[in-house]
Amino acid sequence: MDTVLASIITIGDELLIGQVIDTNSAWMAQELNKIGIPVHRKVAVGDKWGAIWDALNQESNTSNIVFITGGLGPTSDDITKPLLCQYFGGKLVLHQPTLQHVTYLFEHVFKRGLPLAERNIKQAEVPDNCIILKNELGTAPGMLFEKNGCLFFSLPGVPHEMQGLMKQEVIPFLQKKFNLGCIEHRTLLTAGIGESMLADRLVPFESDLPENISLAYLPNYGMVRLRLTMYGENVQVVNDAINKHFMALKNLVQDVMITDKDESLEAVIGRLLKEKNKTIATAESCTGGYISHLITSIAGSSSYYEGSVISYSYEVKEKLLHVNNATLQKYGAVSQEVVTEMVKNILELMETDYAIAVSGIMGPAGGTSEKPVGTVWIAVAGKEQIITKKLHFRFNRQRNIQLTAANALLLMHQLLTQ
Amino acid sequence: MDTVLASIITIGDELLIGQVIDTNSAWMAQELNKIGIPVHRKVAVGDKWGAIWDALNQESNTSNIVFITGGLGPTSDDITKPLLCQYFGGKLVLHQPTLQHVTYLFEHVFKRGLPLAERNIKQAEVPDNCIILKNELGTAPGMLFEKNGCLFFSLPGVPHEMQGLMKQEVIPFLQKKFNLGCIEHRTLLTAGIGESMLADRLVPFESDLPENISLAYLPNYGMVRLRLTMYGENVQVVNDAINKHFMALKNLVQDVMITDKDESLEAVIGRLLKEKNKTIATAESCTGGYISHLITSIAGSSSYYEGSVISYSYEVKEKLLHVNNATLQKYGAVSQEVVTEMVKNILELMETDYAIAVSGIMGPAGGTSEKPVGTVWIAVAGKEQIITKKLHFRFNRQRNIQLTAANALLLMHQLLTQ
Repeated sequence: MDTVLASIITIGDELLIGQVIDTNSAWMAQELNKIGIPVHRKVAVGDKWGAIWDALNQESNTSNIVFITGGLGPTSDDITKPLLCQYFGGKLVLHQPTLQHVTYLFEHVFKRGLPLAERNIKQAEVPDNCIILKNELGTAPGMLFEKNGCLFFSLPGVPHEMQGLMKQEVIPFLQKKFNLGCIEHRTLLTAGIGESMLADRLVPFESDLPENISLAYLPNYGMVRLRLTMYGENVQVVNDAINKHFMALKNLVQDVMITDKDESLEAVIGRLLKEKNKTIATAESCTGGYISHLITSIAGSSSYYEGSVISYSYEVKEKLLHVNNATLQKYGAVSQEVVTEMVKNILELMETDYAIAVSGIMGPAGGTSEKPVGTVWIAVAGKEQIITKKLHFRFNRQRNIQLTAANALLLMHQLLTQ
Repeated sequence: MDTVLASIITIGDELLIGQVIDTNSAWMAQELNKIGIPVHRKVAVGDKWGAIWDALNQESNTSNIVFITGGLGPTSDDITKPLLCQYFGGKLVLHQPTLQHVTYLFEHVFKRGLPLAERNIKQAEVPDNCIILKNELGTAPGMLFEKNGCLFFSLPGVPHEMQGLMKQEVIPFLQKKFNLGCIEHRTLLTAGIGESMLADRLVPFESDLPENISLAYLPNYGMVRLRLTMYGENVQVVNDAINKHFMALKNLVQDVMITDKDESLEAVIGRLLKEKNKTIATAESCTGGYISHLITSIAGSSSYYEGSVISYSYEVKEKLLHVNNATLQKYGAVSQEVVTEMVKNILELMETDYAIAVSGIMGPAGGTSEKPVGTVWIAVAGKEQIITKKLHFRFNRQRNIQLTAANALLLMHQLLTQ
């Protein structure tokens, strides 16, 4: 088995001033892990000659594959290509197949009816000492260099272009080139138990784990994801071993386990509804469509999700959700009474088997001494049962919305599995 | 003015296998930039002794402030604290004020009625050679070390805890300690023009920029954000200079400019509606609440946003949105006719001044030869005008949803500003 270790270098000032969140490197790491290539470092540097140069030196010292993303666009803040040219001692030449591809894209895909600009033609210029990797989805090609036994892949920063290149060119190349080991992960999701208590419960399990299996705790939204990781040579051996330990882990957390797959809570709920052949609808106030967005982010959700009424105002709660004016006046929109009417009515209106309703104050303004910012009422209903729950979050607007949605889905999960 | 340069080290295997996307370092970089501290490198390493150790060595070689986040939780996959202890040559001691704080949190905030576990008490153990930074929101304190003239801040990885520590402890400390210069950014958003064409237009502007001002292109969702950055000693001088060049830039892109602030499209629309004292509602099909989520992610949106009907099925389109059955049967849900009825009806139902409606096929399944995956109809309406638009996206479900939402908001912006 070849020992392969990868670094990812992301290039761009926007990453260093926090204007853009890097999602590319997480996606790349996932794909590389799947084929048994561990990423041991990720580095972000700005659009500066010296910083990029140093990063190339440093990362190739400890890794034998270095991925570089970003810095290949058509504008002049991109210095990556001339730098790579010099770093690997080549010179820029016009690459005819790339020029043809760029021309094709402009004529048949972008269809803006514009002639190729000088800077677009420049995208077809490449160092003469690299292998060109065709970028089906964009104008900047990928490039593969080699120096002192280290491979360097330069990929565009546009996510879907980078992903296309990784899938069509990079991954197949690496699988052919190396005799790769395998990394296996097993992930499960727990709810209703804190990280510390979970860790206490798992002390004997952890101390019994063999050295090549590790356990990680990933807390988020009041839930804790547990992940076992194993690295080894033989796929069968690794799978057998990690499955055995994962089974033991599942038995230890059975009472708090939501799923034994690396999937989101909304995916679990979708699966349960499909299995039961049941439908669901939502009535959202404070979450403003976020619960619905989570549910519909799952492919195939149209088979169980009917829709939602988002009632941000009293008027819409009355007119579209038929909440009683008297209830609203007496208890206020953020109350057990209103959220109960909301969930009952949406169930009827949408003619579904299940429904979720939420009403709360997400902040920063709108709180009172009786109902401070972060106060939330959640209701979930089936044909025969309604469960309501009051919660209070103390975070910013964005996180309060996310936590409310996660807790509403959690309560629905409870109803679906009781 | 002191020359200060920062690195951020994020610790955690979950970052390197792509299970978690790092948002902490972007937030930190933003805050540090505001006070004139440029971040020149960000490095992610796993929960491995050698990797963390090497990163501390490397980053302190080129930076004089090193931030470390993650690796401070109560579970045993966290090795950061003992490592820091050894790296800086200290020993772990129980820190009484932290223990009191942890005890207080367990008794009065978490309120789980549980005694402190051994591992919670351990959170109050800190190296004896650091300054303790109180973490008001959690159990793991921040720590400040100094070595060879470099400052090292160790912060927990939980975002709101890290943010609290940065705001209350770290930023005030750095502002007191250093005579900081200033970094100023000016950002504007354009739509309807490609990155290349924009760059062509801005060639003379760019070549006239002084050396200490840089221009960056940040394309996303078919829009391009332009950012000017200037670094200097004197706040007034920097502001005057960057404002002058920003004004020139704005004049050059006036015809395609959406906003001259670093704000989202939904924030711009919110501002326009507030200024006009108008209201808006949405009727979403394929975006499943995402447009509504974007609109309501803006604080204060309840003053102009009424709500939405999310109609994922034909039945809900008919029953709640009163779309004609005949129209649905004749043209299908993804059609100009249906989206026009949707936008008209939601405007009436919600009694708003403006409305947005979308219907499309987001994939991966559900396409036909006539209406392939990615086909979308958008409609926006005011009291006297309806604009419809057909679009076709070729990406995955998630990105198709995001692009549809961005384009629907863009069309609404067009209506609001015509």
